[in-house]
Amino acid sequence: MITVYGMTMSGNCWKATQILRLTGHAFHWVETDPNTGDTATTAFLAMNPQGEVPVVTLDDGSVLTQSNAILAHFAEATAWLPDHGLARTRVMQWLFWEQYSHEPYIAVARNLITYRGQKQAQAGRLAVCAQRGAKALRVMEQRLAGHDWLTDSGPTIADLALFAYTHVADEGEFVVPPGVATWVARVGALPGIQTLPRP
Amino acid sequence: MITVYGMTMSGNCWKATQILRLTGHAFHWVETDPNTGDTATTAFLAMNPQGEVPVVTLDDGSVLTQSNAILAHFAEATAWLPDHGLARTRVMQWLFWEQYSHEPYIAVARNLITYRGQKQAQAGRLAVCAQRGAKALRVMEQRLAGHDWLTDSGPTIADLALFAYTHVADEGEFVVPPGVATWVARVGALPGIQTLPRP
Repeated sequence: MITVYGMTMSGNCWKATQILRLTGHAFHWVETDPNTGDTATTAFLAMNPQGEVPVVTLDDGSVLTQSNAILAHFAEATAWLPDHGLARTRVMQWLFWEQYSHEPYIAVARNLITYRGQKQAQAGRLAVCAQRGAKALRVMEQRLAGHDWLTDSGPTIADLALFAYTHVADEGEFVVPPGVATWVARVGALPGIQTLPRP
Repeated sequence: MITVYGMTMSGNCWKATQILRLTGHAFHWVETDPNTGDTATTAFLAMNPQGEVPVVTLDDGSVLTQSNAILAHFAEATAWLPDHGLARTRVMQWLFWEQYSHEPYIAVARNLITYRGQKQAQAGRLAVCAQRGAKALRVMEQRLAGHDWLTDSGPTIADLALFAYTHVADEGEFVVPPGVATWVARVGALPGIQTLPRP
């Protein structure tokens, strides 16, 4: 059976279980917390030398890493990922943008403020996160103020990738603009979507 | 004709022109330097509201952004990108890893040290870049000490994406491990590969 190693509160790990559920794959979950050393064991590092979650293992022993590559892997040949051309490229643009311009600020602020209790200790870093995370939300608003989904292909893994940390952005003390907030509700209302637990 | 807006010294912009050359697409180049305001003009922001290069425009006016999405777009249906399954996912893993764990440290150190002359002024930030960039090179070495290419599919856009800033990592004062150095020479020797100019 497919096994997912991940941390329940992580948006990146949520992406893995969410796409598996949406595409009808049963899986076994192994709670794996980088903060308590679970990703630094010999056994874990043998699977993923980078010591990061999520990790997905397949029946044949293959190991998948990188949350957005995992999204694309299981979305292949489903409506969650257009099969070629510009429609597919639009989805890929959002996936790369999420990892470069959104997650490093919004996920990091959420972790430092809500899960690590380091709001004062990391004030300088959080100021950068606040500014760049707000910019990322403005980029999303530019699209979502006038459209239902991030691309013209209906709901895709672009929406899942961005939903992951946007629907809990308040835990990083971000104010979500109105078009983004409406989209968060729209994605959350899709059949089979789960949200992250609250602390 | 396809038009590429980019900065000659940028590895991300190099990716766009390199894949166009390798896949036989003629293109027109427009030098566009974010450091001198070229990406902040009304005309540029109308194309890419994020004010980033590279931007590629197609004959029908479509605008492509995000260097690794551009690589995948033009590599589709060529030997540079396996068409499905685990082989494709392995390439995608390296593309996402490059943007999250390699480029933010190696490209940024190169820019600050060699192009912005801020080695002293940005000493704190550069210390983080040095540590995390070295870690990224160790991850590459783990694969490349025993393999010719980053994936088992022969040379792909994973190798192009990582070559972009790795072959000029010395400009960020990184020491490239031996397996990575041999791979840099191997990629550079492929037919049609161009290297970035030196300052």
